[in-house]
Amino acid sequence: MTVGYGAIFNRRDIDFQLFDVLGLEELLAAPLYDLHDRQTVEAVLDLAERIAVEAFQPSYRPSDLNPPVLDGDRVVTEPSLRHAIQSFTSAGFMSAALPCKEGGLQLPWSVVQSCYAMFQAANIGASAYYFLTVAAANVLRTFGSPDIRETYLRPLLDGRFLATMCLSEPQAGSSLADIATKAIPSTDGYSISGTKMWISAGDHDLSENIVHLVLARIEGAERGTQGLSLFLVPKFRMAGDGRIGETNNVEVVSLNHKMGYRAATNAILAFGARGETRGYLVGKAGEGMRAMFVMMNEARISVGCGAAMLGYAGYLHSLAYARDRLQGRHPDRKDPDTPQVPLVEHADVRRMLLTQKVFVEGAMALCLYLASLVDKMQIAPEETERTSARRLLDILTPVAKAWPSEFCLEANKLAIQVLGGYGYTIDYPVEQYYRDNRLNLIHEGTNGIQAIDLVGRKLDAEGGALWETLRAAILADIALASAIAETAQPAQKLREAVGLLHSATEALRGALPRDLRGALANASIYADAFGHVCIGWMWLRQARVAAARLRENKTGETAQFLQGKLAACRYFIENELGRVRHWLEIVASPAVDILEIEPSWL
Amino acid sequence: MTVGYGAIFNRRDIDFQLFDVLGLEELLAAPLYDLHDRQTVEAVLDLAERIAVEAFQPSYRPSDLNPPVLDGDRVVTEPSLRHAIQSFTSAGFMSAALPCKEGGLQLPWSVVQSCYAMFQAANIGASAYYFLTVAAANVLRTFGSPDIRETYLRPLLDGRFLATMCLSEPQAGSSLADIATKAIPSTDGYSISGTKMWISAGDHDLSENIVHLVLARIEGAERGTQGLSLFLVPKFRMAGDGRIGETNNVEVVSLNHKMGYRAATNAILAFGARGETRGYLVGKAGEGMRAMFVMMNEARISVGCGAAMLGYAGYLHSLAYARDRLQGRHPDRKDPDTPQVPLVEHADVRRMLLTQKVFVEGAMALCLYLASLVDKMQIAPEETERTSARRLLDILTPVAKAWPSEFCLEANKLAIQVLGGYGYTIDYPVEQYYRDNRLNLIHEGTNGIQAIDLVGRKLDAEGGALWETLRAAILADIALASAIAETAQPAQKLREAVGLLHSATEALRGALPRDLRGALANASIYADAFGHVCIGWMWLRQARVAAARLRENKTGETAQFLQGKLAACRYFIENELGRVRHWLEIVASPAVDILEIEPSWL
Repeated sequence: MTVGYGAIFNRRDIDFQLFDVLGLEELLAAPLYDLHDRQTVEAVLDLAERIAVEAFQPSYRPSDLNPPVLDGDRVVTEPSLRHAIQSFTSAGFMSAALPCKEGGLQLPWSVVQSCYAMFQAANIGASAYYFLTVAAANVLRTFGSPDIRETYLRPLLDGRFLATMCLSEPQAGSSLADIATKAIPSTDGYSISGTKMWISAGDHDLSENIVHLVLARIEGAERGTQGLSLFLVPKFRMAGDGRIGETNNVEVVSLNHKMGYRAATNAILAFGARGETRGYLVGKAGEGMRAMFVMMNEARISVGCGAAMLGYAGYLHSLAYARDRLQGRHPDRKDPDTPQVPLVEHADVRRMLLTQKVFVEGAMALCLYLASLVDKMQIAPEETERTSARRLLDILTPVAKAWPSEFCLEANKLAIQVLGGYGYTIDYPVEQYYRDNRLNLIHEGTNGIQAIDLVGRKLDAEGGALWETLRAAILADIALASAIAETAQPAQKLREAVGLLHSATEALRGALPRDLRGALANASIYADAFGHVCIGWMWLRQARVAAARLRENKTGETAQFLQGKLAACRYFIENELGRVRHWLEIVASPAVDILEIEPSWL
Repeated sequence: MTVGYGAIFNRRDIDFQLFDVLGLEELLAAPLYDLHDRQTVEAVLDLAERIAVEAFQPSYRPSDLNPPVLDGDRVVTEPSLRHAIQSFTSAGFMSAALPCKEGGLQLPWSVVQSCYAMFQAANIGASAYYFLTVAAANVLRTFGSPDIRETYLRPLLDGRFLATMCLSEPQAGSSLADIATKAIPSTDGYSISGTKMWISAGDHDLSENIVHLVLARIEGAERGTQGLSLFLVPKFRMAGDGRIGETNNVEVVSLNHKMGYRAATNAILAFGARGETRGYLVGKAGEGMRAMFVMMNEARISVGCGAAMLGYAGYLHSLAYARDRLQGRHPDRKDPDTPQVPLVEHADVRRMLLTQKVFVEGAMALCLYLASLVDKMQIAPEETERTSARRLLDILTPVAKAWPSEFCLEANKLAIQVLGGYGYTIDYPVEQYYRDNRLNLIHEGTNGIQAIDLVGRKLDAEGGALWETLRAAILADIALASAIAETAQPAQKLREAVGLLHSATEALRGALPRDLRGALANASIYADAFGHVCIGWMWLRQARVAAARLRENKTGETAQFLQGKLAACRYFIENELGRVRHWLEIVASPAVDILEIEPSWL
């Protein structure tokens, strides 16, 4: 798709990631996926592209200007959203990753995620509705009883029902241990009572029923997260024959009015306040967190991917604008009788574009890399390979959530800046990308929580095997890139950064058992450094492939695209990776001990 | 004023800057200001504080939710804005800095700017209306003919008229050389024709008349900025007797709908399209830029100050929230039966608060320091002192505009993050601060333009005397701080950073004549480093004073405040100043030449 004013994603880059960087065709040779080939995958991507542009994008601004409203008992959404969700569903995207025998398309997750990425670029808020449903369906497939699967799975996959995840409560946002919602055994399942907050897609008029997956504590269960169980709570009870029955008394207390991401309802829900709310146990009692984490990990990668795509959309828009808009002259050619030059000719504008490029393309590459790990876990013949892929996925999940949201928000800030005053008006989409993307640092676990997850849970897991697996993977790519003239120098720089990160990681791992609080105090700064190294790695991988492909494509648009990858790799590694040293110095020996600062001094 | 949920500025810090850091009492001893003493100044600050809280703040959210609308020919603003502007005017703040004999309060500019800072913290959009008027009145006092002064100055200072500055046009945003608005000599002044864009306070219902200061080209004048003249263009023509006459045909073509800063109208104005628009020359023909730059420089510092105050307001809000809100437990004390701790106890939250603190307090200190330079230019007995002050003001103006807007926006991002999901909703002000502050990187010259001004105009001006004056001032403060135990170490770090900056500056000055384009290519990165050094300097100055005052105040709130200054100085210099090296390495030898990147590769 040509990059014009309207381009919101770069199909060429998606194809480059899938086929050139991630080697999708090799994956398609595996028995699980051999019903597909490059052509069928491209056809699916084409379809997703069309639905994104024709069904999701048109509702982007309208659904921002007309956010959902609570009208008495019901939530009314912007009418154009319905077309988006219906187009998505009827094209089969809800079950695209499922086996054919379950009515799916049996596509690799990396392909499905690429399709979803295009919908996110087109309307991030709208994508919340289907994404939560896909993730909930996955949970129900894995943990749901036959009864639950029979009643709820098909309607979810058909988009007749949509789903939510209900974790937070007014007194328990990031602190899930303090969840107070109760479940009391009843004649039919459990009676659920409590209040859930920040529920995306919590109520709407886009489906016949809504399926809430709710973390709650069975009466008498222990405190903390160990006492939590997962329940399916429908908005309307289901009659035995698959028909929709009476209300299940899930009350929409109010809607949150957000700065962005406004297409997606965000609701406070009360269970059991107006009458009995019935819930059905999903998985075992006391294992709610385990089931919920399946959904949460998917959601985290999806948040990162959405952040990358919002950043990418802003980049493309500001790039098209900068090529078009004439403004000013070069500083050494000020003659006012000469014509003005396009913005892209100005060094500072080019810097802002290139910075966006390295952030957004690096972030998208990371998210699709994670998707390819999901695929590898499915099809790798050797247990060790599957374990490696799972370890990489585990350690990279908090990175794929936090880094794109942090740095692609920065990209969106720069996109506005390229447009100047115009970018600050609602006549252009870049201000909406910026507002929408701001949520991604917060939801599905704030970036601070991700950093604590990375340092506190992942670094020391399995005796440090997650980190060692990642380090080995990065070093392997560095070795490959070192052998090629175009990438030898950035490979060397990345090797140095990995060395710094390794030392810092070893030091943290040593400190964790002695001084958990101290070791976590600068987790966010460490996570930034960690993320930068991973994105440097993604750039090196892309550059190596680009250098090889450039030998066959010396001119034309493909060559320009590949040259851009090489230049961006150099730019990221030279201009951005230098920050790693500064960050890790702070982590290694913080001159100011943050824990020693008295709150009263602030 | 106690820092509660509602605190939007820190009066203790303002007093600390004025009386302790800037030595205001010494200034008040000068003949020009000796009608004031500390008590009268504090009374003025008290008054400003009350008006900010009682008249400006209540309209903050309403004026965001109800931005100005164009109703036929007239622009209707949120009703509560009128009370803010009227309270400001009737308390005498419009002319607070003017001599008594002109009806002013003859207050030092540093005091006036401190008052204005409180209004900006309370409602940044509302402050645009009066600020432009104050600045325009200054231009008219300096450059206006007796006729113009007689007709327009008093009503402006009384707030009966409000003013605007009209520079940009649809085809000429940052490129003022391309301004196309024409002025043709007429029987009464000039006939003005053309279209102006991005006009803040461009039309409204808050005053009897509106005075536009318009850059235009007299027919036959040369191209480029040298051919521009400044004109006063009233919305309504003035009858000879001071009464308001007929329309002057300034048409509001449309309003821009912005992401934030919505209290302030932003209009596209057409002159001379519906009938003759008369304009009156201000200053000499062809010297429009000179007069406009007086206003623009004031506006730039005001933008920086507004950015600092929005950052500060967000900081205070998130700090109060973090002290209050219970959430989670320390990582080494996870027992769910123990009570949750306040957010401020979590290291990562504390880091986000401290980062906000060093940004916003550093930025406010810089802006008030610049105001004190304006005062010094007024009262210093020696010409050399006045020249020094003027040079510092010249070189620091682009820094005071760009740095606060860049880093206090970052502070606002962190304020949202401290509140989590709540911060993303319109129930809390932090999302509005974030949206409003985003404009400050753009208007009154984008930050890219500021960087070019710094490197291209200021570094080499007067044979490098601006930079040398600044360097000497910083080194003098470093010498003082080196002699004190509490500040010796940060002083040494700052000295190193100044050394790096000096080398980079010398290199750039050497490159400017040979390769202007190359020297300016990384101006923004250099400007970030430059700004960080200046803010480090501001922190060192504050810390030195705080250390001295701590000897008299060992306990209580004052001591806590002073301890905070010392801790923040260390934090900024240790955790932030380290970035200077990285930035200057890029400037010194960019591994990727931004000018060599082909636009087609992006």
